[in-house]
Amino acid sequence: MFKKITSIYGDGIGPEVVKQAMKVLDTIAEVYNHEFVYERALLGAEAIDATGAALPTETVASALNSDAVLLGAVGHPRFDNDPNATVRPEQGLLGIRKALQLYANVRPVQTVPSLHHLSPIKIKAKTGVDFIIYRELTGGIYFGDKFTNEDGTAATDTCHYQQHEIERIARLAFEAAMQRHKKLTLVDKANVLETSRLWRKTIQQIAVRYPEVTVEYLFVDNAAMQLILNPGQFDVILTENMFGDIISDEASVLTGSLGLLPSASIGNSTALFEPVHGSYPQAAGKDIANPIGAILSAAMMLDYFGLQHEATVVRNAVQWTLENGFVTKDIDPVNFYFTSTVGDLICDYI
Amino acid sequence: MFKKITSIYGDGIGPEVVKQAMKVLDTIAEVYNHEFVYERALLGAEAIDATGAALPTETVASALNSDAVLLGAVGHPRFDNDPNATVRPEQGLLGIRKALQLYANVRPVQTVPSLHHLSPIKIKAKTGVDFIIYRELTGGIYFGDKFTNEDGTAATDTCHYQQHEIERIARLAFEAAMQRHKKLTLVDKANVLETSRLWRKTIQQIAVRYPEVTVEYLFVDNAAMQLILNPGQFDVILTENMFGDIISDEASVLTGSLGLLPSASIGNSTALFEPVHGSYPQAAGKDIANPIGAILSAAMMLDYFGLQHEATVVRNAVQWTLENGFVTKDIDPVNFYFTSTVGDLICDYI
Ligand SMILES: CC(C)[C@H](C(=O)O)[C@@H](O)C(=O)O
Ligand SMILES: CC(C)[C@H](C(=O)O)[C@@H](O)C(=O)O
Repeated sequence: MFKKITSIYGDGIGPEVVKQAMKVLDTIAEVYNHEFVYERALLGAEAIDATGAALPTETVASALNSDAVLLGAVGHPRFDNDPNATVRPEQGLLGIRKALQLYANVRPVQTVPSLHHLSPIKIKAKTGVDFIIYRELTGGIYFGDKFTNEDGTAATDTCHYQQHEIERIARLAFEAAMQRHKKLTLVDKANVLETSRLWRKTIQQIAVRYPEVTVEYLFVDNAAMQLILNPGQFDVILTENMFGDIISDEASVLTGSLGLLPSASIGNSTALFEPVHGSYPQAAGKDIANPIGAILSAAMMLDYFGLQHEATVVRNAVQWTLENGFVTKDIDPVNFYFTSTVGDLICDYI
Repeated sequence: MFKKITSIYGDGIGPEVVKQAMKVLDTIAEVYNHEFVYERALLGAEAIDATGAALPTETVASALNSDAVLLGAVGHPRFDNDPNATVRPEQGLLGIRKALQLYANVRPVQTVPSLHHLSPIKIKAKTGVDFIIYRELTGGIYFGDKFTNEDGTAATDTCHYQQHEIERIARLAFEAAMQRHKKLTLVDKANVLETSRLWRKTIQQIAVRYPEVTVEYLFVDNAAMQLILNPGQFDVILTENMFGDIISDEASVLTGSLGLLPSASIGNSTALFEPVHGSYPQAAGKDIANPIGAILSAAMMLDYFGLQHEATVVRNAVQWTLENGFVTKDIDPVNFYFTSTVGDLICDYI
């Protein structure tokens, strides 16, 4: 199989982890006789430094012309304390989501039994945590009209959803539920928001076509509690953009190993794959970042290419490193391996 | 001191816990020579059943004519699975907030060392958790224009803030910080939302008047993580309505004893006091609900009346019951006391 991949290193530890993921993809290509060709592109702070723009037009062009995008991380503290800065790394992220119409952000959250001790919550060992979040990524209050009045004394944001925007991600979420434990939880605020009522109505309509899927509705405030109190209850969580931002970050710390978590952002043509962790600039260049989030994102990319067997091989290799203590400093601060070593070990196993 | 209090039992366990709080207030009145007069009013499901409206005009009139409102809980599962129902208990809650202009919802979150084992998170014993959330309660996306288009295929909510709405709650939050550990964290999404940028700008302006207060800014997604990873870092958290709804419910489960948590909602004249826990209908009428949330809400009411000494006496009494195992079933499912017994013990101690 031949695939063209736009590879975006991004900021902080981005380059280091993307390189490991590419190494793993190359190993897969060699063993299973595929050809993956990379085109490098810029995004975020690295793009601002090089071109003045957070999302250069070349990056969009490259991505649109590729089968998938592999992204490291975006963001630099240099920009953090100035919310009024006109050019910000995050614009690159929001821009590429819109340009590629990446409407579904998919985040699996899974605890690894051997790492339960790392979790900040007391996970009931028997159940563990294994769910997947579908967050709408190109609509809602993120992309609605926003303005400040002339004298700067009032501001407005608009949250808008059209039914077809809800339907397309809902279909993906229901299909995922069918492949899993057949439970879908819609997180909304239907007791207050008109858009949430549209989400609920739309999901109720689609649910009819998936009689095997048990559908539950949870207000977002309750969801924020349930994620801590009883995360084992979830299978597929579906939610709108802003709630998804909050809920998925909350969920990502449950496992205690943020560095392990991958994500996929699905659009109409090109999809984007990136680890959940941020750019973590303090660790940049030290070869200590956890490459597993990026490597499992590459595994999601293989799934997306239809290469399920190859994806499983990557996941098994990752599992093997975790079980044998070949882990980075974030997982074991005493007996740890370097980013590149963990990458090498995974490649060797494959 | 003479005070008129509108007492609203509300739904589920509401009546039981409000009665205990009133008993405690009466004991305080007797011991310290005050006079508290109650006027009962209806809200939520109980009001819908009795009058057809979730917020009868008599309730608003009584509240406006009182010094404070004591509220049990609002909500009944009977209404939960029909988000399109025209009359819903929550309307009573939102309505009274608007009618009394209760712009600041104040929620202290504190762990009790002897109850650390109840927490779903692994709290570092040395620091514990002790912060207070100021949530804006009468603005934002809750009360902005909302509509569905004619054919029902699109919906819009509007989040609007005026600077003076931010200023009035910010002043309360800064004053609270001055009385505490002099740290204030604004939770927003200034990298995406125009209203958040207005919040940040406004807080930056007010901060100049409180040079002793350290101000931090946290994006809401990061805040959702930090609350779990390191809740000990917070002192005063200030945030807008929707984020406050999510963040404060998330925070409320950290202690593992939701039943203990009080809240105050401050307006221009009358203020409202209610436990954080919901109506918990499964426990209604069984004398097993935890009355401490309501009793500590009454303590916040005493503070609000300027009766700091009396408030401290109530808190000491509560502390004494917790330390001596005089607790309800939610805290100790084996050796537990009834709701009314815990109330009696607290009164006896006073
Ligand atoms: C950086 C920011 C704009 C972005 C978001 O809010 O979507 C980030 O938090 C994320 O979740 O990818
Ligand atoms: C019932 C609901 C409308 C309400 C809110 O969202 O404000 C509740 O969740 C709360 O926090 O008091």
